[in-house]
Amino acid sequence: MAQSWENPRSGQKAAVCDRYAEAGVDVAAGNDAVARYRTVLAGWRHPDQLGAIGGFAGLFRLPGDESRALVASTDGVGTKILIAAELKRYGSVGRDLVNHCVNDILVCNASPLFFLDYLAVGKLEPATAAEIVAGCAEACRAHDCALLGGETAEMPGLYARDHFDLAGTIVGIVPVAEIPDVHSVVPGDAIVGLPSVGLHTNGYSLARAVIPQAEWLEPFYGGTFADALLAEHPSYYRAVRAIESVATVKTMAHITGGGLLENVPRTLPPECKAIFEQQRWNVPPILHELVRRGGLAPDERYRVLNMGVGYTLIVPITDAPAVLAAVPEAKVVGWVEARAANEPPVIVHPARENP
Amino acid sequence: MAQSWENPRSGQKAAVCDRYAEAGVDVAAGNDAVARYRTVLAGWRHPDQLGAIGGFAGLFRLPGDESRALVASTDGVGTKILIAAELKRYGSVGRDLVNHCVNDILVCNASPLFFLDYLAVGKLEPATAAEIVAGCAEACRAHDCALLGGETAEMPGLYARDHFDLAGTIVGIVPVAEIPDVHSVVPGDAIVGLPSVGLHTNGYSLARAVIPQAEWLEPFYGGTFADALLAEHPSYYRAVRAIESVATVKTMAHITGGGLLENVPRTLPPECKAIFEQQRWNVPPILHELVRRGGLAPDERYRVLNMGVGYTLIVPITDAPAVLAAVPEAKVVGWVEARAANEPPVIVHPARENP
Repeated sequence: MAQSWENPRSGQKAAVCDRYAEAGVDVAAGNDAVARYRTVLAGWRHPDQLGAIGGFAGLFRLPGDESRALVASTDGVGTKILIAAELKRYGSVGRDLVNHCVNDILVCNASPLFFLDYLAVGKLEPATAAEIVAGCAEACRAHDCALLGGETAEMPGLYARDHFDLAGTIVGIVPVAEIPDVHSVVPGDAIVGLPSVGLHTNGYSLARAVIPQAEWLEPFYGGTFADALLAEHPSYYRAVRAIESVATVKTMAHITGGGLLENVPRTLPPECKAIFEQQRWNVPPILHELVRRGGLAPDERYRVLNMGVGYTLIVPITDAPAVLAAVPEAKVVGWVEARAANEPPVIVHPARENP
Repeated sequence: MAQSWENPRSGQKAAVCDRYAEAGVDVAAGNDAVARYRTVLAGWRHPDQLGAIGGFAGLFRLPGDESRALVASTDGVGTKILIAAELKRYGSVGRDLVNHCVNDILVCNASPLFFLDYLAVGKLEPATAAEIVAGCAEACRAHDCALLGGETAEMPGLYARDHFDLAGTIVGIVPVAEIPDVHSVVPGDAIVGLPSVGLHTNGYSLARAVIPQAEWLEPFYGGTFADALLAEHPSYYRAVRAIESVATVKTMAHITGGGLLENVPRTLPPECKAIFEQQRWNVPPILHELVRRGGLAPDERYRVLNMGVGYTLIVPITDAPAVLAAVPEAKVVGWVEARAANEPPVIVHPARENP
């Protein structure tokens, strides 16, 4: 599972999640590293670097055009690739990666320009590598995004023979005037959620710990556990553009590592909190299964998993009906309230029936 | 060792290198993968994507300004990191990576704008991660390049506890009129070489195979084997800009994986060949040692190792004296000749005494 802080300058990190730590991912160490990165980077900042919302991506003034900015983000698919590698199902990981990156810069309202991949393998199998890159190419094309280059590294000794790692970098563009501003968010705004289809690219170290490989090909909700675990990370690009055509979108969050609890605060001003009611949306069965098997307490499940919401948009409450009409899968999943000094920035009310 | 083809659209790959294959890196598989990537990517090309010289980097038209292009490249530091990890010497790998990336876009004549890193670890040690990122930040600042973001992924199960992988993506900019053109190269031109300090970021799987870890702290040429193996990949940015201020630079190559034999052809038109005379430059002792221990035949040593030349520039022969006066470490290492149909694009005459 990728411990992602994307842009460490402004990343927010969680308290330790016990169950997650048992699976080998140390959130406290992540917080510590982010704090150290901040110190490292405090010394100097390029004059053309712009502040980005919540650190989902980095912004850099477009050379020669003060009215626009380049938006860049690097990410990986985490240990989802270990499941893909074991099952030799390589088709979707490239699309997972590109869609993840597209969503990361979409929260800055950016449209993709180009993408580069990094594929590291223990033993280079050309057909496998090509299948992975083909997935990247397919998802790039779907976003009118150039697959501009990449690096394939064969590194015996670092990776087991059948293992690989896959990361990518996307660069997009946005008019500076259209970069979301958390200070536009006010109490009473609605939070629109777009549905997730499963884990996306986060929570896999936990998933591998509680769903042993021996079960992956067992039936699960009309498919197999493998199908549910490898469900493709969707791109929210078209849905977001459709929503923007009918509503004022104030801020957006891509719900990746850290879940609703850590990603949504990046889209709020300090004087606001977000209230979610889980009964307003559906939780994919595989996430219910992870909660049940892992015994995840509410605070942990909304931090380690997306719990069914893959992307959030904050809109004026009066725009909500138009949003729901324009994008049928969108739901109002919560709202913004004033936040007192002692309150957390996000509160999720679990659905009545556990979980 | 990174099997780098950077931009697979135009990468050139080698015949199999036997000794290298024994160390676990399969150059033939690399060729095969590149061919498959070409097929994958043949279907569609973004209209703003430009042809790049030799595939060292990808070029994309700067939005709103037809006269300039963004230049992007992704790379890793290969299994050099395994040596750094074993010795817990993390300071230089970040600089290795950034300098490598700077050189890769420099062959397109691009100046860096921003960089993003990808650090994947088995077990996140915050102090180590911060030391690595600090190295990236330092080298970025030295090039007036923003460290715009990054991703740190903790992936138990994929990486051994003390292992990590480090890759990065750089984006720079170049005036389209200043992008080098191989067709400007003519027989009689001089090839200027800038010295390497060791392996840089290529050949480490071989190095680890022939220099066992037990010897790394043994004395070697005034330091240790570890010092020689971890010598920092230099940036050629300032030297190249100094040369360009006194000479017409036609094309340039960064001598990485593939050595002189595979990188220099990317900077030549089909009707030209490059002739190198190894006695014209010095080979770092660690490279001599690898050639000796590995029993590398000439064809192999100039393909797996840089053999002392880290970067090449092709200039009119009449400009050579000014180049050597401007940059004392630069040497004329060879020249361009007309190439017959049956001749290879690069010929290296080894020095008389067997290295």
